[in-house]
Amino acid sequence: MDLTSLERARALDGTDPLGPFRARFAVPDPGLVYLDGNSLGRPPLAAIEAVRHVAEAEWPGELIRGWEHWLDAPLRVGDLLGTGVLGARAGEVAVTDSTTVNLFRVASAALDARPGRHAIAIAAEEFPTDRYIVEGLAGARGLEIRWLADDPIDGLTVREVERVLDEDLALLVLSHVNYRSAAIADLPGITARARAAGALVLWDLSHSAGAVPVDLAANGVDLAVGCTYKYLNGGPGAPAYLYVREELQDELRPPIQGWFAQAEQFEMGPRFKRRAGIGGWLVGTPGILALAAAEAGIALSAEAGIERIRAKGVALTEYAVELLDAWLAPLGCTLGSPRDSARRGNHVSIRHPDARRLTAQLIERGVIPDFRAPDSIRIGLSPLTTSFEVVRRGLEALRALLADNHPPGHDGPGPS
Amino acid sequence: MDLTSLERARALDGTDPLGPFRARFAVPDPGLVYLDGNSLGRPPLAAIEAVRHVAEAEWPGELIRGWEHWLDAPLRVGDLLGTGVLGARAGEVAVTDSTTVNLFRVASAALDARPGRHAIAIAAEEFPTDRYIVEGLAGARGLEIRWLADDPIDGLTVREVERVLDEDLALLVLSHVNYRSAAIADLPGITARARAAGALVLWDLSHSAGAVPVDLAANGVDLAVGCTYKYLNGGPGAPAYLYVREELQDELRPPIQGWFAQAEQFEMGPRFKRRAGIGGWLVGTPGILALAAAEAGIALSAEAGIERIRAKGVALTEYAVELLDAWLAPLGCTLGSPRDSARRGNHVSIRHPDARRLTAQLIERGVIPDFRAPDSIRIGLSPLTTSFEVVRRGLEALRALLADNHPPGHDGPGPS
Repeated sequence: MDLTSLERARALDGTDPLGPFRARFAVPDPGLVYLDGNSLGRPPLAAIEAVRHVAEAEWPGELIRGWEHWLDAPLRVGDLLGTGVLGARAGEVAVTDSTTVNLFRVASAALDARPGRHAIAIAAEEFPTDRYIVEGLAGARGLEIRWLADDPIDGLTVREVERVLDEDLALLVLSHVNYRSAAIADLPGITARARAAGALVLWDLSHSAGAVPVDLAANGVDLAVGCTYKYLNGGPGAPAYLYVREELQDELRPPIQGWFAQAEQFEMGPRFKRRAGIGGWLVGTPGILALAAAEAGIALSAEAGIERIRAKGVALTEYAVELLDAWLAPLGCTLGSPRDSARRGNHVSIRHPDARRLTAQLIERGVIPDFRAPDSIRIGLSPLTTSFEVVRRGLEALRALLADNHPPGHDGPGPS
Repeated sequence: MDLTSLERARALDGTDPLGPFRARFAVPDPGLVYLDGNSLGRPPLAAIEAVRHVAEAEWPGELIRGWEHWLDAPLRVGDLLGTGVLGARAGEVAVTDSTTVNLFRVASAALDARPGRHAIAIAAEEFPTDRYIVEGLAGARGLEIRWLADDPIDGLTVREVERVLDEDLALLVLSHVNYRSAAIADLPGITARARAAGALVLWDLSHSAGAVPVDLAANGVDLAVGCTYKYLNGGPGAPAYLYVREELQDELRPPIQGWFAQAEQFEMGPRFKRRAGIGGWLVGTPGILALAAAEAGIALSAEAGIERIRAKGVALTEYAVELLDAWLAPLGCTLGSPRDSARRGNHVSIRHPDARRLTAQLIERGVIPDFRAPDSIRIGLSPLTTSFEVVRRGLEALRALLADNHPPGHDGPGPS
């Protein structure tokens, strides 16, 4: 069978064990080629129903009495995510606030826990909000920032991390899956090396949770944060999460102490006394509409199981790379992601000098990837919603655009 | 006409210019006597519709493209709230995060702006999360906390504030309307005194926004925060807001610098460069479902107009106090709120030694106030949704409970 044929795409879909999950999502426009589920996942039907239930039944009907069960939501959804998707133990994850606020809180507490150390490390090409938080904390505390050189395709190596580890390094803030290239960092190896050197690592799981196993407990991870609106399909601006390993929950002290972290919250006592456990890492009143949607999204990933999700994800990106090699490489594209699928998360970065314009043209044609400066078209493949046929349609559209721009036998303006 | 008669309550409702607003809210159980809109306001029909639109149309249909208009939401809703309800100028309010996170951010920035001063002041009986944030900041920075003595009924006086003002006081964190007694602080007077002494004031407007005019611009207020789930009817855990006077927005530096505060956000540039204006006070990805509900709730208050809302609020609490005097005072209750309606916000605190048990009994009977330790039944009157007849039904139920407990002619266990 021709590797690039429609027939093959359909055959792959026909034997996909996660194929039936597509029917669990709202897809009002089946003609749209959506390749940006790594920025905003599609809505689970159950999420829409859950939001409707809060807005149309719980809020109007229960009113203030709803807090009898809403109060638990950040930790209940946290346990679903932690034990069902992230390989954490119960009581180690809370779904709350934004990724950025959680980055600040956890990083700040981690720095406080290493008072004799004066350096913090982050990749020079890390996702912006992570860098901005690190810059802010370093500026406020007079810390040295050690910028890690991450390869544009292969991301961060253990050797590069080892370069910055010494007795003065307090904390590393690292993404598990690189937001541009999808390179997977060696989470177990880096975690072990950092711990041996006495530094803490705060992992940002935004691009791996719900796509790549993270096995937080098995890998001895101390600290992590991430968002729920990508592969976890939690909705636009869905609440984020934080993970603090049980053994560190009381030792580390959150810098923002709010009433949702207070023991005996409604006694409104005279002094702050932090709740034991991960509840002590909550802050203010949680948004219940958003938590309901996030819970439904996370539940679908937990139901599908991270091992099946990973297998499907690898198959999707391998298929995309095959099409890139066959169709797009001859037209001037290069692979901006690791070629080894074991080192690649769930998106594929396609590099081309005209990436910005090509992305805009694809969107006009109903194909939605996203652009990442300076030269990448990022194709996100969501294991629960993306079919092989949709991947093929997206890359076929890109091939057609490039072929229009570079007719055979003519030199176009692209790279030689 | 008998002041306590049902006929009078209905006459008051009949001439209430805001009466028609009740039909704009979802009230599935008209028999419920809901007197807790100051904890969680009822759902506007438009809020339910807005949430449904995001969940059922925008998220599934627009997917990532929704951010073209979602990105503006925190500032668009902020302007609606700021100019429509709070008397701020455009560009001074952002709707974002929780009240607690905003308290931390604004207070922290204010303390940074007064580096030579080493004290922070807050009322000893202030709302817990405000106190916990102040305790946390003071502990982290080695500041003295000056505890203001607030009267259980009359709240905080200008004289008491003057007691703590000196060249070492950096910041006061104060509620405009006291969460227990509803006492209104002298916002213009305190703001002027503090400014003259070189201190900043951070006002918590949670119990006044949407009930009592605050006139931020006219009163020269520098800093404020508050929630949108009480009188603004934004939904359970709706996003909070912060106000920073235009002249201070760039001078003060937010301690959590995230990518939503970045100029040229999607260029993902190498260093943090803060957006000018109130947008520079955003942090992470905003929750769009919750913002849609909050926008609809705030829009109703803006439409009704804060002066009409205030007039209705005064009439409601005056009516409640009349019924308390006539029915409940003889049965052992006392007024825990200022008697002068000009000094009272939109709830009425009814004190009784058995308040905790009485509140539970009222809830069993379908009357929902809330209890505040140690001895207050708090009756919240929402100008847009509470009718005079409902106030009467609530206090009549309390009268009946008390009469059962204290039959005429017998000494009960209550106060003598």
